[in-house]
Amino acid sequence: MNYLAMNRDELIAEQQNLLREYTAFKNMNLKLDMSRGKPSREQLDLSLDMLKITDYMDSSGADARNYGHLEGIPEARQFFSQILGVSPAETFVGGNSSLHLMYHMINLGWNFGFPGAKIPWKDCNKVKFICPVPGYDRHFRITETFGFELISVPMLPDGPDMDMVEELVRDPAVKGIWCVPVYSNPDGYIYSDNTVTRLAHMKAAAPDFKIFWDNAYGVHHLGDIRETCPNILQQCRKAGNECRPLLFFSTSKITFAGSGVAALGACLEIMKAITNYFFSNIISFDKVNQLRHVRFLKNEGGIAEHMQKHAEIIAPKFNVVIDTFNKGLAPFGNIARWTEPRGGYFLSLYTMKGCAARTVELCRQAGVTLTGAGAAFPYGKDPDDSHIRIAPTFPSTKELGTAAHLLCVAVRLATVERLLNSER
Amino acid sequence: MNYLAMNRDELIAEQQNLLREYTAFKNMNLKLDMSRGKPSREQLDLSLDMLKITDYMDSSGADARNYGHLEGIPEARQFFSQILGVSPAETFVGGNSSLHLMYHMINLGWNFGFPGAKIPWKDCNKVKFICPVPGYDRHFRITETFGFELISVPMLPDGPDMDMVEELVRDPAVKGIWCVPVYSNPDGYIYSDNTVTRLAHMKAAAPDFKIFWDNAYGVHHLGDIRETCPNILQQCRKAGNECRPLLFFSTSKITFAGSGVAALGACLEIMKAITNYFFSNIISFDKVNQLRHVRFLKNEGGIAEHMQKHAEIIAPKFNVVIDTFNKGLAPFGNIARWTEPRGGYFLSLYTMKGCAARTVELCRQAGVTLTGAGAAFPYGKDPDDSHIRIAPTFPSTKELGTAAHLLCVAVRLATVERLLNSER
Repeated sequence: MNYLAMNRDELIAEQQNLLREYTAFKNMNLKLDMSRGKPSREQLDLSLDMLKITDYMDSSGADARNYGHLEGIPEARQFFSQILGVSPAETFVGGNSSLHLMYHMINLGWNFGFPGAKIPWKDCNKVKFICPVPGYDRHFRITETFGFELISVPMLPDGPDMDMVEELVRDPAVKGIWCVPVYSNPDGYIYSDNTVTRLAHMKAAAPDFKIFWDNAYGVHHLGDIRETCPNILQQCRKAGNECRPLLFFSTSKITFAGSGVAALGACLEIMKAITNYFFSNIISFDKVNQLRHVRFLKNEGGIAEHMQKHAEIIAPKFNVVIDTFNKGLAPFGNIARWTEPRGGYFLSLYTMKGCAARTVELCRQAGVTLTGAGAAFPYGKDPDDSHIRIAPTFPSTKELGTAAHLLCVAVRLATVERLLNSER
Repeated sequence: MNYLAMNRDELIAEQQNLLREYTAFKNMNLKLDMSRGKPSREQLDLSLDMLKITDYMDSSGADARNYGHLEGIPEARQFFSQILGVSPAETFVGGNSSLHLMYHMINLGWNFGFPGAKIPWKDCNKVKFICPVPGYDRHFRITETFGFELISVPMLPDGPDMDMVEELVRDPAVKGIWCVPVYSNPDGYIYSDNTVTRLAHMKAAAPDFKIFWDNAYGVHHLGDIRETCPNILQQCRKAGNECRPLLFFSTSKITFAGSGVAALGACLEIMKAITNYFFSNIISFDKVNQLRHVRFLKNEGGIAEHMQKHAEIIAPKFNVVIDTFNKGLAPFGNIARWTEPRGGYFLSLYTMKGCAARTVELCRQAGVTLTGAGAAFPYGKDPDDSHIRIAPTFPSTKELGTAAHLLCVAVRLATVERLLNSER
């Protein structure tokens, strides 16, 4: 049954069928929030033992409860340096939010300027930032808040369209790019070796061009295939551009979403500017929580073991969604496509042009809140109105099955409406 | 034995005596850091039970471990609103550092502008900030970092010199004032009712003039006398200036210096701008730590009880210092004065003009690190070179007795040197 091959009468008949199905969903009085990438309670419980740890003396013999160690306690710098793939001296361990660290890095460039900048970004006529789309709304919002011009570049299965990126960075007003290199939010794509090499080597006109490398999902594999991508700092160093990348990591989706630990890596020259920046605004971040995390997760092996438990909980949820799409969307012609990530927290559903907002609205009216259509694009506007971000981790598998089924009906209904309207 | 009445020969003889005493201290190989206001281990241990609390469901039924509640969990807003003397809706609960919240508030005014501002501070020709001196070096540093002109105003026993403040705020470039209203850092003074009324009512030319009201030591009484000062938001509201104050509080010196919880109060209009500001830079602060604190400290009564235990540990330390000054400085004429606070974390020692830096250097050479002379003044420069901040909480009482004794010898030696030099 290919919607695209149907005539008007067939479409009207199908619309009636779908409305009946949709009404049945409405009568279920669903109340489900799938708008954000939140871990489920079962996932949070995996780290409950962390709260029982009452250690407070760090490896330097200092009391983690007291002031000191602005850059983080030594064992936390060691721990995160391994994950970031940099040295401990190139590692700054912060509070509970990597987004907050990213904001501060934009703020540093804006108010004071990174080493190599002739003037701070605030004094530039124009600041532009590259946003691979679809991407993470909270990234884009930071740069929007500062009034930057956000330039969309398509996110391809092997990373952002590098032909476009290389062209764009010839403009000295282009100061940076947002990247989620592994299991990207929301597509779940992985940057290829070639993409990373090109990012490291490309000629950026701005001497203070920055790659915001948010490896939020670097250890969040769903199955046995563990995707990785090359170390951006090493690649940039090889290319003579070691000041280019800022590397971010966070345990928000490893331990507790709201009470994790975030870390930041950069070459020593940039790290010096970062430490100097933070020196004027905080005595030290929460080091007891840093200690708690290192004691609990131990090392890279400990993380891998722990992430395996997460995968056992959430991989089936991704599967439910994809199975439901295969049954509820695939048979009706080329009306939608979706990504099938091997890790991370999201997948993307692409409807026909002009159907995403209507689909999300139909789901909302039936009690299922999705991320707003367009949210994954700068200024919240998807020019094609076709992208929907799916966050399958928080609901139960059963709820998820229902929601995904509703979503299929909504996509089909929106598609039929669209086809009928475009016929007029 | 009045140094000021001594002739040259007498001074030289006294200098020889003092050098002998000083050398004896040097031979003790002391190694003591009294540079910052850090709680002692014994004080930190008072809150150890807080680490054992493993609750994570907040009063709204939400999981504190997950994302959400940007403004803080409901019971934490309730808890801190009582201490701040504002409503829960006027309360924002943050991370582990009130200094960090203050930085963000300066950043808000600088980059985006507070409600009522015609332009953000960054676009003003000049931004000036009033700094009561001596004051908290970290306050001054924030505003120095942003390139503000820092204007010193003398701190009197009842608050900043209000005649000067009222005159200064007639300049629209003057955008704010740093205040530590109760047991001020470092003098331990308390703002009088009259000072608070005048701050609330004064005519500020800048519509976005802000009082940074850092009540860091509001519950930190040393004895039975519990100093308070009027509620700045209420007073400003009465005066029609409710958007003027930003109220800060922190548990850094109640529970753990590095792992406490900070809170911020402001009228609803300003709070809306604050929430909007933070929305672009963090999902939520660490709510498990907020919950831990509320569970442990419970309410204002719980805090008072807990602070009593701190007082039992640190009041004797203040007494040791003051007793030693009485014995080691008072008998030698009008060569020094000091404050005798009823609460807080510091006291001030004032030497004769031109003797503070030399005194601190003499102590350093004998193994006792004090806060750098001048640190309590904008740009780190005490024009009189007479102020030394004393932080008695961290060392043991015994160490403190030794350090205070050394300090007396150092002050006397510096004074004698100065008198001999000025005679030439």
